[in-house]
Amino acid sequence: MMITSFSNPKIKAIRKLEERKARQETGLFFIEGLRTVGEAIQTGAPIETLVIAPQLLISTFGQSLLAHPAVQAVETITVSSEVFERIAHKDGPQGIGAIVRQQWHSLNAIPVSSTAVWVALDRIADPGNLGSIMRTADASGCQGIILLGACADPHDPTAVKASMGSIFSLKLVTSDWESFLKWRTGNQIALIGTSDMAPTDYQDITYPRPLVLLMGSERHGLPAEAVAACDALVRIPMQGRADSLNVSVATGIVLYEIYNQSKKLDTIEP
Amino acid sequence: MMITSFSNPKIKAIRKLEERKARQETGLFFIEGLRTVGEAIQTGAPIETLVIAPQLLISTFGQSLLAHPAVQAVETITVSSEVFERIAHKDGPQGIGAIVRQQWHSLNAIPVSSTAVWVALDRIADPGNLGSIMRTADASGCQGIILLGACADPHDPTAVKASMGSIFSLKLVTSDWESFLKWRTGNQIALIGTSDMAPTDYQDITYPRPLVLLMGSERHGLPAEAVAACDALVRIPMQGRADSLNVSVATGIVLYEIYNQSKKLDTIEP
Repeated sequence: MMITSFSNPKIKAIRKLEERKARQETGLFFIEGLRTVGEAIQTGAPIETLVIAPQLLISTFGQSLLAHPAVQAVETITVSSEVFERIAHKDGPQGIGAIVRQQWHSLNAIPVSSTAVWVALDRIADPGNLGSIMRTADASGCQGIILLGACADPHDPTAVKASMGSIFSLKLVTSDWESFLKWRTGNQIALIGTSDMAPTDYQDITYPRPLVLLMGSERHGLPAEAVAACDALVRIPMQGRADSLNVSVATGIVLYEIYNQSKKLDTIEP
Repeated sequence: MMITSFSNPKIKAIRKLEERKARQETGLFFIEGLRTVGEAIQTGAPIETLVIAPQLLISTFGQSLLAHPAVQAVETITVSSEVFERIAHKDGPQGIGAIVRQQWHSLNAIPVSSTAVWVALDRIADPGNLGSIMRTADASGCQGIILLGACADPHDPTAVKASMGSIFSLKLVTSDWESFLKWRTGNQIALIGTSDMAPTDYQDITYPRPLVLLMGSERHGLPAEAVAACDALVRIPMQGRADSLNVSVATGIVLYEIYNQSKKLDTIEP
């Protein structure tokens, strides 16, 4: 039966997931769009419910997603185009959404490979930046994101959208500083942070592996304890009147330096 | 006299500038915040009106801006904190804003130095991405931004905010493709574009000067005529499931490769 009412309890529950509090209480989040739902299905994310608006879901790719083995046993609800537009928060939605269980990983349960690169973020408050960082981390081969301090929620709709599905390819960890530092020491993981005040150009060091790249917020920079714990601090040079970069751009610039160095290593030592 | 009413004609005119149409008709835009207004004043931007909320403007830096020689002859209006919060669209505003005249440059009126780097953008629709690109272009020493096709307005409040004042350090140009290609041919300016399909890694070429780096939209890529006009096309390599990057991150990665190459050139040939 097609849901046509905005006050249907299932629709109200989905809309409630726009709030961080509701996501925390339920451990769920809502995603929509062919790209994002496609990534969730293809990576085997734990989908609890598929939400379909048949009149909007017209693409062949969309149809193929419904036929994917991974979702054959998943509860599916159908909604009217009007209801879907309301929960998708955009014009011209593609008629496919899903309620997905959040997957958080514990630092100590993660096998750390000798070549692993992680990104740790301290107090990154903007969900769009967090989503963009997830996207770049995925593209440059990182294992996951470690959230330290009060960060935006990676399951925020803006973060999910900006990640372009990469949220399903990365391991997500939230940790306090003490546990994080203990983990990286215990696993002999290099910790390199960025700072406007660092003496070293980000291109002038060799990034060891396994590695955590630590990025602070644009507003606060890295806390003193973090600076003290780093094996090295690097700076992105700037000219002109600018004295800082957007944190997702800065993260991309350093991650690609790390990625480029590793590609050259692969070439030298095949 | 302090303006306390939201329906004051000057306040209504400022709020109207949130709309692109009003900005186009008047040639003006509204900026707010210590950082952005500070950059406007310090770079000599054509400020038409300063807007001050005395109870909010409490910082020493804010006071020093009011004493700056560049604004002594500028019309100043004072508004209540409530009115300022409404026009600033944020909590905790710093009590300083300005109406500024837009400065657009004509391609043919620009002296092109032998070392110049420009960024040309085709159909970049998101003002946050445009603002972030302005910020990175400024930090990496670019001369300006050339907007081709239907792009976001660099004077959009979201773009201005994301540029962190860099909008006042860059030359802004809007052009059609034909004039742009004629200009770059006439001035012997290299044109290098990015494309997911390009065979060449962005690190595997030497970027000539003067140079225009051409970035297309994430959704559409570069139009065929643009691809045909480029001296070279480069690709940012990716692994994992990601098949693209956020356009402001991608622009930052290539701009920093260009910047790093130029720094090395400076070292070799002082």
